[in-house]
Amino acid sequence: MKMPKLLPLETETERTLVKYNMLLRGDSVVVAVSGGADSMALLHCLHRLTPRWDLKLCAAHLNHRLRGRESDQDAEFVGSACRELGIPLHSEVAEVGQEAAARKRNLEEMAREIRYEFLRRVARRSGAQKIALGHTLNDQAETVLIRFLRGSGSEGLSAIHPVVDGVIVRPLLGCSRDKILKYLKIRGLCFREDSSNRDLAIRRNRVRHELIPYLEEHFNPRLIETLAASAELAREVAGYLESQATSVFGSLQNQENRGVAVQVERLRELPRALQKSVVRLAIRTCRGNL
Amino acid sequence: MKMPKLLPLETETERTLVKYNMLLRGDSVVVAVSGGADSMALLHCLHRLTPRWDLKLCAAHLNHRLRGRESDQDAEFVGSACRELGIPLHSEVAEVGQEAAARKRNLEEMAREIRYEFLRRVARRSGAQKIALGHTLNDQAETVLIRFLRGSGSEGLSAIHPVVDGVIVRPLLGCSRDKILKYLKIRGLCFREDSSNRDLAIRRNRVRHELIPYLEEHFNPRLIETLAASAELAREVAGYLESQATSVFGSLQNQENRGVAVQVERLRELPRALQKSVVRLAIRTCRGNL
Repeated sequence: MKMPKLLPLETETERTLVKYNMLLRGDSVVVAVSGGADSMALLHCLHRLTPRWDLKLCAAHLNHRLRGRESDQDAEFVGSACRELGIPLHSEVAEVGQEAAARKRNLEEMAREIRYEFLRRVARRSGAQKIALGHTLNDQAETVLIRFLRGSGSEGLSAIHPVVDGVIVRPLLGCSRDKILKYLKIRGLCFREDSSNRDLAIRRNRVRHELIPYLEEHFNPRLIETLAASAELAREVAGYLESQATSVFGSLQNQENRGVAVQVERLRELPRALQKSVVRLAIRTCRGNL
Repeated sequence: MKMPKLLPLETETERTLVKYNMLLRGDSVVVAVSGGADSMALLHCLHRLTPRWDLKLCAAHLNHRLRGRESDQDAEFVGSACRELGIPLHSEVAEVGQEAAARKRNLEEMAREIRYEFLRRVARRSGAQKIALGHTLNDQAETVLIRFLRGSGSEGLSAIHPVVDGVIVRPLLGCSRDKILKYLKIRGLCFREDSSNRDLAIRRNRVRHELIPYLEEHFNPRLIETLAASAELAREVAGYLESQATSVFGSLQNQENRGVAVQVERLRELPRALQKSVVRLAIRTCRGNL
């Protein structure tokens, strides 16, 4: 296959990818592809890097069936894009709406859970070490802002992690949506636009299309970068607190009890910030999540 | 002097005052009074609590001379209010605008510096242990929001501290502006409105009159309380980080050097969050501030 000559902008996107040092030479990678701008850029970038980095790519697309015909067209679009690139595609249909209704779960959460399960299953089956997701600097900033308005502490403000468990990686997390759109345009690449992205009744869309432009205009023209940096700061602090909490947690556990029982009188002697981290750790140890 | 019967709402305001446990029986207190709603409420509340708490009050007003005739009227208003209450008033005029221009300083910062110098001088002269300021829950939320949009970490997000050096106290910091206005209305108390408070070219006014109402409507109806709680969380974390940094700082200092020289190779081994706290501490040790 003849590779087109590299454009300068692609080199820039590659630098963004390299920055997080998320992929290793020879990695087998599942790329999650919705068909939208971010994931199409990710797919194309990783495809371009494949010969240089000796990657082994496959794509994964889950049709959530939430937007009828439009959802099916997304799946077809991803299918033909992968065929063109010669990348094997794992595609599945999940009736997310029905599932959420049956289990009385929040639709967005349910969709997320089913999607991540699907991606991990594809990775297992294809023997991939990594799952690459197309989250961007803008997604990061939006998440930080939403969490801040909800009152999150440093753990919540850590927002989207660049790497989770060494498996999930987000190579575009340092890259703004503007840059991605420019990249797609210069390369002449197509992508699908999700019609629900314009619905201002959805909180994230209001943040993206209303709140952030207002804040950029009146308070901080570099808001996206600022908030993404705040997420990194928060992640450092949350990581430090957790490591400190872990090191005192053992000594605080009641020896007579085999569950998680913390000696409250000794917990009380700790600084407040550490107390809270220990309690979070205890809950996570018990329940597996927060 | 005959005290009017206590209304239930005043009791509530008192509880807010008591919550922070900032004033002790027998304390001599300088109350900073601009003539605006917050400081007038503070003055009246503390005046009411005087017999119960055995306080010794005096008021302090600095005429910044930034709004011409309006500034002078504020000073006159505060003067007559204090006379009516029988509270001694220390009043001064500072040509803040000229001072800032002469020293090429930011006007707001300069005004703040001159005002705090003035308050500390009044406290020294009158032998007062405390300086009480009228900052409210809304001031706290606004400050947290402004700092967040600027990218502050936990130290900056701590925003307005309820107590500084055991001298400056902010008894109304847990009390919303709404509550204060209701209190003033029920008591039939007057206050001055600063005409510049409506000027949307001033960042804080835009936050107060535009951004916060928008966020309350679309994201969090209890935003003020949420952000004030975030400030408290951040203060706990910043305090913990500082105490940890202090305990490693000594061991990191280079023994051959009498200034602040930190062993960089050992600093590098620390977790990132702690590294930054140590560097902040080193700068503060050198320069007295950040």
